[in-house]
Amino acid sequence: MEFITQNIDLTTGDPEAKRSTIKQYYNATWTLYERLFDTLVSDDIFYKRPQPLRHPLIFYFGHTATFFMNKLLLAGLIEKRVDPHLESIFAIGVDEMSWDDLDDAHYDWPEVENVRNYRNAVNRTVNELIDRMNFSMPISWESPMWPIMMGIEHERIHLETSSVLIRQLALDDVQPSVLFQPNQATGKAPGNCLIHVADGTVKLGKERDHRLYGWDNEYGTSIQQVPEFSASKYLVSNAEYLEFIEDGGYRETRWWTKEGLGWRDYHQAEKPEFWRGEPGAYRLRLMTSEMPLPMSWPVEVCYLEAKAFCNWKSEKTGQPIRMPDEAEYRRLLEIAGLDREHHEQPINANWNLEQGASSVPVDTFRHGDFFDLVGNVWQWNETPIYPFDGFEVHPLYDDFSVPTFDNRHNLIKGGSWISTGNEITLHSRYAFRRHFYQHAGFRYVASDKTVKTNFDVYESDEQVSQYCEFHYGDECFGIANFPKAVAQLALAAMEGRNKNRALDIGCSVGRAAFELSEAFAHVDALDFSARFIQVGSRMQEAGRIRYERTEEGDLVTFQERTLAQLGLNGTYTNIRFMQQDATNMKPEFTNYDLVVAANLIDRLHSPARFLRDIAGRINSGGVLLIASPYTWLEQFTKKENWLGGFKRDGEPVTTLDGLHAELDACFTLADEPVRIPFVIRETANKHQHTLSEATVWIRK
Amino acid sequence: MEFITQNIDLTTGDPEAKRSTIKQYYNATWTLYERLFDTLVSDDIFYKRPQPLRHPLIFYFGHTATFFMNKLLLAGLIEKRVDPHLESIFAIGVDEMSWDDLDDAHYDWPEVENVRNYRNAVNRTVNELIDRMNFSMPISWESPMWPIMMGIEHERIHLETSSVLIRQLALDDVQPSVLFQPNQATGKAPGNCLIHVADGTVKLGKERDHRLYGWDNEYGTSIQQVPEFSASKYLVSNAEYLEFIEDGGYRETRWWTKEGLGWRDYHQAEKPEFWRGEPGAYRLRLMTSEMPLPMSWPVEVCYLEAKAFCNWKSEKTGQPIRMPDEAEYRRLLEIAGLDREHHEQPINANWNLEQGASSVPVDTFRHGDFFDLVGNVWQWNETPIYPFDGFEVHPLYDDFSVPTFDNRHNLIKGGSWISTGNEITLHSRYAFRRHFYQHAGFRYVASDKTVKTNFDVYESDEQVSQYCEFHYGDECFGIANFPKAVAQLALAAMEGRNKNRALDIGCSVGRAAFELSEAFAHVDALDFSARFIQVGSRMQEAGRIRYERTEEGDLVTFQERTLAQLGLNGTYTNIRFMQQDATNMKPEFTNYDLVVAANLIDRLHSPARFLRDIAGRINSGGVLLIASPYTWLEQFTKKENWLGGFKRDGEPVTTLDGLHAELDACFTLADEPVRIPFVIRETANKHQHTLSEATVWIRK
Repeated sequence: MEFITQNIDLTTGDPEAKRSTIKQYYNATWTLYERLFDTLVSDDIFYKRPQPLRHPLIFYFGHTATFFMNKLLLAGLIEKRVDPHLESIFAIGVDEMSWDDLDDAHYDWPEVENVRNYRNAVNRTVNELIDRMNFSMPISWESPMWPIMMGIEHERIHLETSSVLIRQLALDDVQPSVLFQPNQATGKAPGNCLIHVADGTVKLGKERDHRLYGWDNEYGTSIQQVPEFSASKYLVSNAEYLEFIEDGGYRETRWWTKEGLGWRDYHQAEKPEFWRGEPGAYRLRLMTSEMPLPMSWPVEVCYLEAKAFCNWKSEKTGQPIRMPDEAEYRRLLEIAGLDREHHEQPINANWNLEQGASSVPVDTFRHGDFFDLVGNVWQWNETPIYPFDGFEVHPLYDDFSVPTFDNRHNLIKGGSWISTGNEITLHSRYAFRRHFYQHAGFRYVASDKTVKTNFDVYESDEQVSQYCEFHYGDECFGIANFPKAVAQLALAAMEGRNKNRALDIGCSVGRAAFELSEAFAHVDALDFSARFIQVGSRMQEAGRIRYERTEEGDLVTFQERTLAQLGLNGTYTNIRFMQQDATNMKPEFTNYDLVVAANLIDRLHSPARFLRDIAGRINSGGVLLIASPYTWLEQFTKKENWLGGFKRDGEPVTTLDGLHAELDACFTLADEPVRIPFVIRETANKHQHTLSEATVWIRK
Repeated sequence: MEFITQNIDLTTGDPEAKRSTIKQYYNATWTLYERLFDTLVSDDIFYKRPQPLRHPLIFYFGHTATFFMNKLLLAGLIEKRVDPHLESIFAIGVDEMSWDDLDDAHYDWPEVENVRNYRNAVNRTVNELIDRMNFSMPISWESPMWPIMMGIEHERIHLETSSVLIRQLALDDVQPSVLFQPNQATGKAPGNCLIHVADGTVKLGKERDHRLYGWDNEYGTSIQQVPEFSASKYLVSNAEYLEFIEDGGYRETRWWTKEGLGWRDYHQAEKPEFWRGEPGAYRLRLMTSEMPLPMSWPVEVCYLEAKAFCNWKSEKTGQPIRMPDEAEYRRLLEIAGLDREHHEQPINANWNLEQGASSVPVDTFRHGDFFDLVGNVWQWNETPIYPFDGFEVHPLYDDFSVPTFDNRHNLIKGGSWISTGNEITLHSRYAFRRHFYQHAGFRYVASDKTVKTNFDVYESDEQVSQYCEFHYGDECFGIANFPKAVAQLALAAMEGRNKNRALDIGCSVGRAAFELSEAFAHVDALDFSARFIQVGSRMQEAGRIRYERTEEGDLVTFQERTLAQLGLNGTYTNIRFMQQDATNMKPEFTNYDLVVAANLIDRLHSPARFLRDIAGRINSGGVLLIASPYTWLEQFTKKENWLGGFKRDGEPVTTLDGLHAELDACFTLADEPVRIPFVIRETANKHQHTLSEATVWIRK
């Protein structure tokens, strides 16, 4: 087929030759995408909505062109829009939308002819840009050619997802196309079996200078130990899946996850989406036709159905059956020798449109001891997509991956018959919601390993994010990191004293605890807010946190911070993060040589109660460090409980007066108070800039 | 009488001699005050409440001692309290209180004997302190001897106010005291008449280095032109006032002010407070006795009664009769030759307890053409107390004057028979609520002049005060004044352009308008907030503003800022401050060569409407300066109206993008945007520290 393409090496070669290769790849993609819509019987069909939660096809027809315009404008490579009106209509909408987004009243879809003309105009713009663009090799993230590659690969994704939508149209709405003819091979389904895989280590993630185009989620590193497991030789065929159905698979509740049940009941699902007809006479819907259910072809299901099948299979076999996780899948590729990019190593598989526009029998393409490790249909993984260590958002497309890092988008691997370009590279990481339909099926594994399904997501709570930045982020106005400065002041006061146990009370997201950890045998880090404590725990466990930082209005940037970046290279296993009320701590929190209470007292309901209580928890000769801006506010502390900042009997009482009144019985003030500045960044422009008065009290 | 004292020169003389003089003055005051309470028949009377809105006498007995303790502690001159419990009970309470303060449940009054012992202990402390204190001459505000003087003069005030309370006790509750015997002189009241006073200029206020102790409100300057007027020869006597009563004075509504009517009706007043008995047989209550109403003595009334008398007198005479204002009163002293401190120039008058413990006939003490210009009874003025230019609060007693700068406390002048010390100095400025009772009466004047009765009070609204400080106050963190920086940027952009008319839209409290005023023929300064505009107007009119600045919790300091301090020495008559909605300005606000919109656009409901409108108000070649931190918040601007800070069609739109979209048709962006920092001080420790992006647009 004339549109079969190879991925392009972006790192080596002559720029002019590369320009020509890319231009060819671009035009092949563009044309192929338009030809996909030849399968619609008339222009009317463009306005049909094959899935109720997605736009009609006209949107996807225009969308890939508009995407080019948006990214090229954003990159500063072009200066004006081809058609602002259409480009407003055709922006965004890849993932599933909520009902609100789909109110038809919001859309006044244009004529197909207008969209064709629009596509042609965009196509001229992009071709001219490719022709005249100054660029050099290698083509990296920053290269002006990168957004061209981004637009191409984006269109290739839509080639596949639009082909799924076309498969969901009524049969009368579609017509055969010479470019998208199904494969005719059928036959008896082979009996499946589990093949043992030895344990091993896999390294996921690719280098920044990798030679192929990649989406942001592919970069970074994740090294994982994979215990031995066994995996099914074949993808699950329609025949194998039919056993599940005939055993009451869709009726029985116990095999379904809660999420799966919700989906099943809502959709009243009784069989896979593309199956037609009744039991005993099932037919399979292809892109433009139907055929009797080909028993040897892989079944196409969503993750939730595949999961129910695995649970049924577990029950039947007594083995722990599930889908592979991302590392296990990689391990399968490795033992089959498929762990290099296939363009360096031709792989026979039903993909890249090389075998026609449909599945083929599951025993057609052998890969080592297995079949269909890649191609035919995508293979659901148990793993929700998550960012690798070192993940960075590409600034031109900052909502490609991050919104899917929500533990609700599971990875699909291996590609289908229509997967091309980046989709069929070793490092690709596509993910969809678990109930989403693609040309996707599954293979199963037997393993005792519990799969990790809950990954850190980008902290988006505005207050928590502000504190992440405050503790672990950038300096503002040249003001040194505050929790670190407080910890340093505390450590200076501890000179020559016991350093067994320290308490950081009101630790927020925990920076000071890490700073104290190296000097103390044990550090307790307590806060009233579990949301804050979680950040500290995450940092302790993973050495990194991720959060959205507000820049202007609703615009955010995605931040990753690691302990290592901050010069914190310890193990930090001696820190215990825990949720506690500072005025009602459990008795076990005692015998401290140091207690740090930074920016705490003016946020307590009853600061005096805290001060009276804390004395009993500090060893004689121990240190209490209080730092506070004395910002008393009735929303936190009733006026009658303020330590200072009021007139009593007509005379001013400062908070320092109040601290003396509460502490002098048990403590000696070590020195003159010092004021430590801190800055909390609210937006790129707006900050709180505050002075926190630090006093060091020695326990008598 | 042995307790007659003279005011002490605090600026010259030998320190040891001065120590001795002050100690003597202190002890005379202390003893005299205690002797006042000899007039109570028994200790039970200490617990009576002569005025329902004031504490029982026991409070006042303890209070003057506690005041010493509080001020000496605050000044760091002593280190511990004599009796924390009693000192909590005896703090504050000079001015009238609200009902809440007087809930008896809050007070568990101590035994009189305990209070006597307490007073003795305090007395020893103060005497010891005077003996051992290091001080040098002169004794200024900062001297450790100043709080001693403060405590003495404070006790002398209470000597007088307590004597009023004793006069309000039941006759059975009091007994004669050899120290407080009434004067026996009576007689027929002289006929009163008005005496002409030529116009003149008076200078009120005393210098910082004045030789006598003074309260904070006496310092500073106020120079006033006094047009000619005439003044009554005598204080209004009981006889003259009786005419008013007999003419239906208390029954007729039209002579009373609204405030006076409220008071009259609430108290069902039919005659002065100290008059007893029925018409035709009135008696006068003195401190410890009653007597037939002495017709020749000055009537004692509150301001509201005096005012009704004046209005009645106006009606009867056809002349504009009222009480003098503060300047007219000083003018009377000057023409009588009493405008020097009386300790330099002995003055015969019924004051300083020199004539006994009561009034004397109004024709007893002649002062020039008049009688009783000082002494006998206080003389109500029309002028509410207000701060002189250059007023500063004394840090040891910051609530002496400021709470009375509310236009509701009118000045009383001249002193009464029991006024002593600071009360009978030329510069003294005591003020009470207009319905308050003292040994006070009045003299009247005839004048066409309208008396100013509404003075700037300290701006206490937190937001307005923050903006006062932001525009006119101190630099924080070394960040230059923001409105000034914006004005300078605007003036730089105006180089070589017409500078006829400028508009500061969203001018807040107006600093930039003053900065622009010198370069432009006319400046309009508009803001949506009338509260902000008032500050700008006040600054324009008076060259000074006053506001409370929050320091910590509820603690504030009192700030005064002048244009002169800021190097702004123009006349500024070319500024027009006006309340206007930036998105709905009147047509007259047009033809500008410069429009400054600083920190405005992200606080408008509809910033785009403002931008579209403003273009039509700027002359071709004129400048539009927009400065904004782009802090978009839904509370101010619905998200659909944000200029930027959101994603449109999936791509980020910054506010700068939005400004271009709105302005490019009519304007050219002059330069790269610059970010101007600003700091808004919320407390001594907490600040907003923000960057405002400034863009300069030239009108096409």
